[in-house]
Amino acid sequence: MAAPILNDRDIEFMLYELFDAEGLNKRERYADHNKETYTATIDTAKAIAEKYLLPTRQKIDSNQPTFDGEKVQMVPEIKAACDAVTESGFGAATADYEMGGMQLPPIVSSAASTYMTAAGSTALGYHALTAANSNLIKAHGSAEQIKRWVEPMVAGRFSGTMAMTEPGAGSGLGDLITTAVPDSDGNYLVSGNKVYISGGDHELTENIVHLVLARIKGAPKGVKGISLFIVPKFLVNDDGSLGERNDVALAGLFHKMGGRAQTSTSLSFGENEGAVGYLVGEANKGLMYMFHMMNEARILVGTGAATLALTGYQYSLDYAKERPQGRLASCKDPMSPMVNIIEHADVRRMLLAQKAYAEGAYALCLYGTQLADDERTAPTQQEREHAHLILDFLTPIIKSWPSEYGPKANSLAIQVLGGAGYTNEYPVEQMYRDNRLNPIHEGTTGIQSLDLLARKVPMNNMAGYIAFVAQMEKTAAAAKQQGLTEFAEELTQAISVLKSTTEKLLGAMMTENIDMALSNSVKYLELFGNVVIAWIWLKQGMVADKALAAKPHQTDENFYRGKLQAMQYFFRFELPEIGAWAKLLNDLDTTSYDMKAEWF
Amino acid sequence: MAAPILNDRDIEFMLYELFDAEGLNKRERYADHNKETYTATIDTAKAIAEKYLLPTRQKIDSNQPTFDGEKVQMVPEIKAACDAVTESGFGAATADYEMGGMQLPPIVSSAASTYMTAAGSTALGYHALTAANSNLIKAHGSAEQIKRWVEPMVAGRFSGTMAMTEPGAGSGLGDLITTAVPDSDGNYLVSGNKVYISGGDHELTENIVHLVLARIKGAPKGVKGISLFIVPKFLVNDDGSLGERNDVALAGLFHKMGGRAQTSTSLSFGENEGAVGYLVGEANKGLMYMFHMMNEARILVGTGAATLALTGYQYSLDYAKERPQGRLASCKDPMSPMVNIIEHADVRRMLLAQKAYAEGAYALCLYGTQLADDERTAPTQQEREHAHLILDFLTPIIKSWPSEYGPKANSLAIQVLGGAGYTNEYPVEQMYRDNRLNPIHEGTTGIQSLDLLARKVPMNNMAGYIAFVAQMEKTAAAAKQQGLTEFAEELTQAISVLKSTTEKLLGAMMTENIDMALSNSVKYLELFGNVVIAWIWLKQGMVADKALAAKPHQTDENFYRGKLQAMQYFFRFELPEIGAWAKLLNDLDTTSYDMKAEWF
Repeated sequence: MAAPILNDRDIEFMLYELFDAEGLNKRERYADHNKETYTATIDTAKAIAEKYLLPTRQKIDSNQPTFDGEKVQMVPEIKAACDAVTESGFGAATADYEMGGMQLPPIVSSAASTYMTAAGSTALGYHALTAANSNLIKAHGSAEQIKRWVEPMVAGRFSGTMAMTEPGAGSGLGDLITTAVPDSDGNYLVSGNKVYISGGDHELTENIVHLVLARIKGAPKGVKGISLFIVPKFLVNDDGSLGERNDVALAGLFHKMGGRAQTSTSLSFGENEGAVGYLVGEANKGLMYMFHMMNEARILVGTGAATLALTGYQYSLDYAKERPQGRLASCKDPMSPMVNIIEHADVRRMLLAQKAYAEGAYALCLYGTQLADDERTAPTQQEREHAHLILDFLTPIIKSWPSEYGPKANSLAIQVLGGAGYTNEYPVEQMYRDNRLNPIHEGTTGIQSLDLLARKVPMNNMAGYIAFVAQMEKTAAAAKQQGLTEFAEELTQAISVLKSTTEKLLGAMMTENIDMALSNSVKYLELFGNVVIAWIWLKQGMVADKALAAKPHQTDENFYRGKLQAMQYFFRFELPEIGAWAKLLNDLDTTSYDMKAEWF
Repeated sequence: MAAPILNDRDIEFMLYELFDAEGLNKRERYADHNKETYTATIDTAKAIAEKYLLPTRQKIDSNQPTFDGEKVQMVPEIKAACDAVTESGFGAATADYEMGGMQLPPIVSSAASTYMTAAGSTALGYHALTAANSNLIKAHGSAEQIKRWVEPMVAGRFSGTMAMTEPGAGSGLGDLITTAVPDSDGNYLVSGNKVYISGGDHELTENIVHLVLARIKGAPKGVKGISLFIVPKFLVNDDGSLGERNDVALAGLFHKMGGRAQTSTSLSFGENEGAVGYLVGEANKGLMYMFHMMNEARILVGTGAATLALTGYQYSLDYAKERPQGRLASCKDPMSPMVNIIEHADVRRMLLAQKAYAEGAYALCLYGTQLADDERTAPTQQEREHAHLILDFLTPIIKSWPSEYGPKANSLAIQVLGGAGYTNEYPVEQMYRDNRLNPIHEGTTGIQSLDLLARKVPMNNMAGYIAFVAQMEKTAAAAKQQGLTEFAEELTQAISVLKSTTEKLLGAMMTENIDMALSNSVKYLELFGNVVIAWIWLKQGMVADKALAAKPHQTDENFYRGKLQAMQYFFRFELPEIGAWAKLLNDLDTTSYDMKAEWF
C-alpha cells in the first residue's frame, strides 16, 4: 500500500476538534455550507491530488521549465493539473458567489489545498498567487479594475503574480528603482527589471496579471515613494477580449533547487515603448497594499512548509512500518527475525519529532488562516478587531516557524529512509529541496525576526503582544484545570521566560544602541516560536485528553494517544531549548554585533 | 574576484599552529619531508582544484552519470579530473615509497585533498575509496594480494570500492545474505546483490577491485559469519595483465540528490557462473577487517562534511562582503547608501555560526587524521597505544558531528545568499545537497550514537572515555592558566555535566531495560559532540590568544580575533544547548521509548 498523502483523521481533528469549522456556517457568508459540503470539497481536492499531482510529481521535478527564447516550455502535466484545479473551482474556492467563487471558509479551502500541495508541492502555486493577487485588487482596486482583472482570474482564464524583487532590491524593498511615468491616457508606462518572480511567465493561462511595485517619477525615496501597478502580459480590451502584447518580456528562468513546478522568472518591463501599467489605489501607498497580499502569502508560505513536513512524515512513517532492519539491543539472537524499523526507539524519535513539528506548524497555520477569516467575517466588530490584532502580531511566527522546522522534518524523513531517502526513487529528497525555499521567500527569517521584535511587539503599546500572551496564559490555566498539570506549568514557566526576555529587549532598544539591541532578533523569534508551538500543542493535547477522558477505549484511542505523546515530545525535547536562548538574550550578548567583517 | 575555495591562512593555522605537522618530519617515515614539500603538495592540490574541479562542478552536478545498459556514461570532465589527481600522485599520497606512494603524513595529504573536495565534492571520492581499499588489503591481505591488487590501485590503474550494503541489509549488516562457495581453485564463487555501492562501476580505470562482504556457505548466522573477499571487475593474470570479465554486473545506477560525480550502483555478483572472489585474511573475520576500512572512511566522511561547510562559508562570506542591501536599523535616512550585508548583525551571526561549525568540525577531523597516523608512526609504543585508544573512542563523534552540522552550515550559506542561494547560479545549493548524504553513509547518526554509548564508552573499563575526558580537562586547566577563564570554566562545567550524564546512563544500562536506556542515545551523542567541539575551539582559542599576547598588532591580528570570536560564538550560542539535552537524559526520558507504532 502506498503511503497516504496526509493523515485524513488528523485533518478532521484540526478542522472539527481543534478549530470549529463546522460552527462557521452560523455566519451568514457560509450559511449554505455544512460539514457535508466541506467533506465533499476535501474529497475533490484529494481526488485531484491523487489523479493529477501524485503520479506526476517526480516527472515535473526532473523536467523543470525551460525558456526557448520565445516561450516557456514545460511538461504538459503541469497544465493538466492546473486545469483540473481550475475546473473544480479551487482557484476561486473562497471568492464571493457574485465573482463566481464557492465562498468557502478559508480554513476549509486551506485544508483541501493541503492535499494538493502535499502531492504536488508548487504545482498549486499558480492558483495560490492568483488568489492572493485577486484579493488584493478586490480590496484596493477600482470597480473597473476588479471587473477587468479579478473576474478573469477567479474564472481561471488569467493568472496573477506579485512582482517586487529587483536585482538590487530584495530584502531592502525601499531601494527598488523600477519607474512609472504617467502617459497621455491617464495610465503609466512602467520600466525596470524584476527577478525571482514566481509564475512570471508561462502558457498556462491566457494572460498574466503582474502586480508591480514601482516608483512614480519624482516620488520620495525609500518605502514612502512606492506605488502599485497592474501590468498585464497582454492588454485587455473594454469587452474583456485580449488586446496587444504589453511591453513585458521574459528575460530568463531561474534553475531552482526545488519547487520546480512553478517558474521563477526574470522579467523586463518597458524595454521598448514602456509597459502599460494601471495604478492601484493611491500613489505612494503601494507597499501598504502589497502587504495585504504579502501577509496572505506569508500564511501560505508557512502552510506550504508545514504541508511538506506533514506529507514527508506520512511517507517516512509508512516506510518505517514496513521496512525490516536489525534487532533491538535487548535481542542477542541473530536467528530471530528482523524487526520493522519503527520498533527502534530512535526511529520513533525521528517520527515523533516530525509529527511534533508538522502538526504543530500546521495547526498554527490553520489558526492564522482562521484569524484572517475572522478579521472579515466574525460576528462582532470586537471579535474582528481582536482577530486582526492577533494575526497582525503573529504573522512573522506563522511564516517563519513552519519554514524553519518544515525542512528539519523533511531531513528527518530522509534519515528514516537512510540511503533510500537520498535517491529520487523516493519522494522525501524532493520535499527537502522544495521546502528549503520557505525560510527565504516572502521575507527571510531574519526579516521576520526584525518585524517581530522591532515592530510587532512594541506596536500600539504592545497591544498585539499583550493580547496574544493573555491568550496563551488562558490556555495554560484551562489546561491546569483539566489536569494536564506538567504541561500547563511548563508553558506558564516558558511564558514567564518570554515575558522577562521581552521586557529586557524592549528596554535595551530604548537605552542601548539599537543595532546591538536587535542583533539577536532571530534568537528571540526562535524563542517566541517555540513557546507558541508549545501553546498550540497544549491546545491539541487538551482536546485529545478530553476525548479520552470521555471515552477511554474508543476507535480513536490510538490517534489521541499519539497526539498526547507528540505534545509530550515537544515539551520534553524542544521547548527546554529556549532556556539557553533566553540566557543569551537576557545577557544582551554582543558576539555577532561585535564581530567585524575583517575578522572573518 | 571569485570566492576562495578555502581560507589558506586557516589551513596553515590548522596544520602548523593547532597541530604540529612540521614536527612530523622528526619521524623516520617522514624524514624526507618538510614544510616546503607540504606547501608544494597543497599548492598542487589547489591548482588541480582550480583547473579541473571548480570550473566543472556545476556541469558534473547537472549531468549525473547514466547507464546505457552496457556501460556507465559520464561527462568527460570527471575522468579528466580523476586523471589529473592520479598523475599528480594524490591517489597514493600517503602510501609507502616502495608501493609507489609519496609517503606524506596523512594530515598534510588530508589538507591538500580538502582543496579538491571543496572544489569538486565527490569527484575525489573514487580516489578516497581506492586508498581506503588499498590500506585494508595492505593490512590484512596476503603478499600476493597486495602485489596483484594494491600496486595497480596505488598506481591509479585500478580503483576500489567497499561493497557491504544489500537490499535487505543496510544498518543491520549481520543479516547480509551474499554467499561464497569454495571453488576447485581454492578461491570462492560469490553471488548476491549489493546496493548503494559508491564507484561500483565506471570507465575511469582499467579495473575495479570490490571488497565484498559475504557469508561462506555454512558459516554462522549474524556478524560472526561474515567474510571478506576481493572480487574484481576483471580477473587479473599472473603477469598483472587483465584477464576475463568476472561475473559482476551493473544492475543500475541510483539517481541521487547530490554527490553526483560519484556513481552509486546496484551490483549483481554471480548471476551466471559465479563471481570469482579471493578471501582476505581468515574466514568469518570479514567485518573486523572491513571496520579497518570503515573507520578510515568514517573520518573521511566527517572531513568531507566539514570541507563542504568550510567552502560554503567562504562563498557566503565573499557574497556578504560584496552584496549591498538595506541599511542598519540605526539609519533612518533612505538617501544614505546601502550597506553590504555583512554589516547586518544577523548576517554576521550566520557567518559566525558557519565558521564555528566548519572550523570546529574540520579541526576535529584533522585531529582524528593525526591520531590515525600516530597509531602507526608515533615514536613510542605508549603514544601509539594512546592514539589508538582515543581515536577508537572518538570515531563516532568525528563521523557524526561534522555530518550533522555541515549541512546546517550549508543551509546558512544559502540563507546568506537569499533567493540567489536557492538557484544553481551559485554553488551553495549544491553543497547543501551534496552534504546531506553524510549523516547517512558509513553508519547513520543513529548507528554512531549506539556505537558511542553502548560500545565505545563502556569498552575496556571505559579506558577510551576516561583518557579522552582527561585530555579535555587538561586543556581546560591550561586555558584557565592562560587567562581564558570564562571559556575554561564553561568547558569544565560542560565536562561535569557530561560525566554525570554518562554515569547515569551507564547505570541505567545495567539496571533498566536496555532498549529504554539506549533510547535517547542520539541526544547523548549530540551532547558529547558539542562538548568535544567546545574543547577543540578552546584549543584554537588558546593558540590565537597566545599569538596575540605575544604580538598584539600583527598582520594576523584580524585572523586571530576571528578565531577568538568564533570560539566565543560556540560557547555562547551552541554549547549551552546541552543543558536541555542533559536534563532529558538524566531524567531517563521515555517519550520515544513509550511511543507505540499504532499511535502515530
